[in-house]
Amino acid sequence: MTTPASARVLGLAAAAAFSIAAGIGPAQSQDDPHASGGSAAYVPSMTTLGQLELEIPGRKPDDPVITPEEFATASKVYFERCAGCHGVLRKGATGKPLTTDITRDVGYEYLRDFITYGSPAGMPNWGTSGELTEAEVDLMARYLLIEPPAPPEFGMAEMLETWELIVPVADRPTEKMNDIDIDNLFSVTLRDSGQVALIDGATYEIHAIIETGYAVHISRISASGRYLFVIGRDALINMIDLWMETPATVAKLKVGAEARSIETSKMHGWEDKYAVAGSYWPPQYVIMDGATLEPLKIVSTRGMVYDTQEFHPEPRVAAIVASHYRPEFIINVKETGKILLVDYSDIRNLRVTEIEAERFLHDGGFDSTKRYFLVAANARGKVAVVDTEIGELVGLIETGGGTPHPGRGANFVHPVHGPVWATSHLGDETVAVIGTDPDGHPDEAWTVVQQLYALGGGSLFIKTHPTSNHLYVDAPLNTDPEITGSIAVFTISELGVEEPEYQVLPIVEWADIADGQPRVVQGEFNMAGDEIWFSVWNAKDLESAIVVVDDRTLELKAVIKDPRLVTPTGKFNVFNTRNDVY
Amino acid sequence: MTTPASARVLGLAAAAAFSIAAGIGPAQSQDDPHASGGSAAYVPSMTTLGQLELEIPGRKPDDPVITPEEFATASKVYFERCAGCHGVLRKGATGKPLTTDITRDVGYEYLRDFITYGSPAGMPNWGTSGELTEAEVDLMARYLLIEPPAPPEFGMAEMLETWELIVPVADRPTEKMNDIDIDNLFSVTLRDSGQVALIDGATYEIHAIIETGYAVHISRISASGRYLFVIGRDALINMIDLWMETPATVAKLKVGAEARSIETSKMHGWEDKYAVAGSYWPPQYVIMDGATLEPLKIVSTRGMVYDTQEFHPEPRVAAIVASHYRPEFIINVKETGKILLVDYSDIRNLRVTEIEAERFLHDGGFDSTKRYFLVAANARGKVAVVDTEIGELVGLIETGGGTPHPGRGANFVHPVHGPVWATSHLGDETVAVIGTDPDGHPDEAWTVVQQLYALGGGSLFIKTHPTSNHLYVDAPLNTDPEITGSIAVFTISELGVEEPEYQVLPIVEWADIADGQPRVVQGEFNMAGDEIWFSVWNAKDLESAIVVVDDRTLELKAVIKDPRLVTPTGKFNVFNTRNDVY
Repeated sequence: MTTPASARVLGLAAAAAFSIAAGIGPAQSQDDPHASGGSAAYVPSMTTLGQLELEIPGRKPDDPVITPEEFATASKVYFERCAGCHGVLRKGATGKPLTTDITRDVGYEYLRDFITYGSPAGMPNWGTSGELTEAEVDLMARYLLIEPPAPPEFGMAEMLETWELIVPVADRPTEKMNDIDIDNLFSVTLRDSGQVALIDGATYEIHAIIETGYAVHISRISASGRYLFVIGRDALINMIDLWMETPATVAKLKVGAEARSIETSKMHGWEDKYAVAGSYWPPQYVIMDGATLEPLKIVSTRGMVYDTQEFHPEPRVAAIVASHYRPEFIINVKETGKILLVDYSDIRNLRVTEIEAERFLHDGGFDSTKRYFLVAANARGKVAVVDTEIGELVGLIETGGGTPHPGRGANFVHPVHGPVWATSHLGDETVAVIGTDPDGHPDEAWTVVQQLYALGGGSLFIKTHPTSNHLYVDAPLNTDPEITGSIAVFTISELGVEEPEYQVLPIVEWADIADGQPRVVQGEFNMAGDEIWFSVWNAKDLESAIVVVDDRTLELKAVIKDPRLVTPTGKFNVFNTRNDVY
Repeated sequence: MTTPASARVLGLAAAAAFSIAAGIGPAQSQDDPHASGGSAAYVPSMTTLGQLELEIPGRKPDDPVITPEEFATASKVYFERCAGCHGVLRKGATGKPLTTDITRDVGYEYLRDFITYGSPAGMPNWGTSGELTEAEVDLMARYLLIEPPAPPEFGMAEMLETWELIVPVADRPTEKMNDIDIDNLFSVTLRDSGQVALIDGATYEIHAIIETGYAVHISRISASGRYLFVIGRDALINMIDLWMETPATVAKLKVGAEARSIETSKMHGWEDKYAVAGSYWPPQYVIMDGATLEPLKIVSTRGMVYDTQEFHPEPRVAAIVASHYRPEFIINVKETGKILLVDYSDIRNLRVTEIEAERFLHDGGFDSTKRYFLVAANARGKVAVVDTEIGELVGLIETGGGTPHPGRGANFVHPVHGPVWATSHLGDETVAVIGTDPDGHPDEAWTVVQQLYALGGGSLFIKTHPTSNHLYVDAPLNTDPEITGSIAVFTISELGVEEPEYQVLPIVEWADIADGQPRVVQGEFNMAGDEIWFSVWNAKDLESAIVVVDDRTLELKAVIKDPRLVTPTGKFNVFNTRNDVY
């Protein structure tokens, strides 16, 4: 049994622990009731009036204890490994909720085994894969029995403290100072080294390796093509000037404790004017100056869940895209199930249209006309469709598969059904092909017109290109190494049959890597659309690679290897990214 | 010194206490972190790591203790007497913040004396006025040293439990069933009896006394004039059908723990379609069906303060008006200083324009054209002006006085400056006259064109009418009984001189009330604009009255007395209210 004193020590240590994990100094003012609520969350409470013993609420006599040092370590591991799916406050999203009412009910041993072995529903096998040691698994199981630390707010004062304008606009080049073909450049996330690599789309040369935040989630390009924005899971943004002799970071800003999304203004007349980033914690988004990252306007996403209309304290910001039809950012709020159309034409009088869609909005992209935005409500198995010209929900589609994960999706012209957009799934091998042509194929618009069957569950990304006749589907989170090392390719012109077959590209085999069990993830086309790059993602201390495939022949074209290519994952071709070609 | 056990007892009792005070049953789900944050707020914490004693943070050795029963009583008193100015979470607004960092710094004796004697800055003298006993003052001073209870959320589930559709639409009359001249009816708040009186504007007959929530703050009338909406400080709404033989409540809804504002849709084509109510707690507003009060859409106001852009957990909703130019509600959020234009034309795809204005927005009204909305940011001494046709802030004016409190303000044509709107002040005797005619008097628009000097500080309401040549100013919160019992009247046609003088109407004297020290509050015109009514507001157990003055002669016309007229305060003439004539 813990004593009151040790429990108090824990409480105080917990607040400190989050600061370490999230890299945030003391921030919260004393008069914010959330501050006391947060640090008080660890305080033992009593179950009956007048009872004298102090204990952790719901604590069972044989529940394990945890030291302050362990709590700090566990908070860091949780943030890096678990929070992405289960949420900073453990309220669940892609992953199940892990609130203490649940964890204490199932108990320590269940948690330990679940973390060790994972589940077919998508929980990784952290123990048997060797990613966590037995001691770490034990620690995390104990940690989950304790209330989570409530991370601090991160408002304008905190943001401004992190803002670094490394190269002011006046000191930047006035013309492009290098010979790089910027439009065919690839920005490649080096996940575990906290960097991005800028790789030439023609020569495969690495032009620069740039230090960034932890596990950069995405790269986005300003409308002009000059500036590259990347955002780490730790909410650190790097703004990179591609005109410099060697492209480098010209501004940095941290927008919170955890984040996933960044975008820049793309409407005609507003090119390069603003950037916007969405955070998981605090639940908010921030509009920044597009030339300096200066934070201008922070907007909280805390509010009501769209259907139950109960208050949610942590509605995380998922994918953001920039409308081509109106001066708007399209911001997806996960837990409340709302799609926000944020009009950036007058940020002092900010106009936001809040579209009721579906819970657990995650990722998505435009149809080929860029008028319609399709986004997965992944834990609900649905895709929501917004008409960005009129600003309304026009479709909400059951994909028929488990946990759709489109990335930005894949647009192509189906031989029978015309213009379509497709998503693969985390939970099974299906690919949902959705009609996107309300004019030419009105009966099929916003319905699943075909279901394809690819390699297996655990897919993250699907890809094609307007000039390509192929549709590529990965499955990096599958449990079968054969599947995680391969890519399924459908031939678009042959999709008219009832059950279209696919070819298998043995990407990992082609990469010819001696050690480890790398996974192949995320196909990305070059600007011309005649070759597609795949990341061969190995452990941090082992060799990784990028495999380049000739789209026309489906043959291996090149393997990019370099000691600096540590854990490559997402890749973003400048032209395709800035023009929303996918 | 309190023991850990007694401190815990206090914590648990506190949660229960709020339920009693606010009339709310157990509502909050266990997995809401705010729930634990709230109940944990009482838990003693330690100031240094490893310290063994448990104590209330900041507690001094000689600070008094408080029992659970006392805490419950104090919570109720605080809610009824203090929360209006100091906030449910004690973060301050019109009144100073009373967070424990402040209260523990000044200490028990200072608090006790301040509550007893009040202050010239506006704190009432609760002790010497006899409104609180010495024991109650002592209790409140001790209570303020303890963290406040965090009240529960109040989402759709909780609202629907309170919704009562007493007379469905189908069972209501299809034509007016009484002979009441509805347009000249007055809805009069009977503050301490939790009722409104419906009084005939011509005969002074009381047509009905209707049970309502506690201390009805305002009455509003549907655009058609048929439905009367009132809202209590306890957030209970009554919807009253004025067509019934005896007007009565046809629907009720409680929208939170504390509220102030209600309005109905007035745009052409949207008459009587929606109602909207704003809450102090939880910080949110709700759009309701205009025929049934069915809650349709709840929107949280939690978010960033407009200038510092720090997160505020309790941004209370103050005045709401309905635009005549667009299908919008204009909703003022106090602590964040934002004016929200809420487009109700499509509540599934809700569009909100969030105008950065000034902190501590409170009350206000339209100019005479109803195009411009003027609202006081009272603790900042300013008035913000929104052009409701284009949806932007067009002015932010220092009023030159202390704590402007316009009510809805007073519109008239100044002999020199043309169309103007005026506000009196809580903090001093000044009246700020503001130009509202950007076309005819462009240089004077949204500036203070004249400062008048009325009876004294403590004014709540100012009033005139388009047909009147008089401007009436009350001062019910002054400390001088001579002043609180009188009304200052300026003659509009004589405002061209440098220091216009006023006449004094001895309203309380005219009311001829034997006992107590009643205050005169809130002039309200009849429909024709030829008489003005004043409330003579006495203690609950003493006689009150309504004094009717002939506007043309400034002579006493009638005194309305009735045993049922308990503590009359605000009065709302149907025609003037529904047409925003003031």
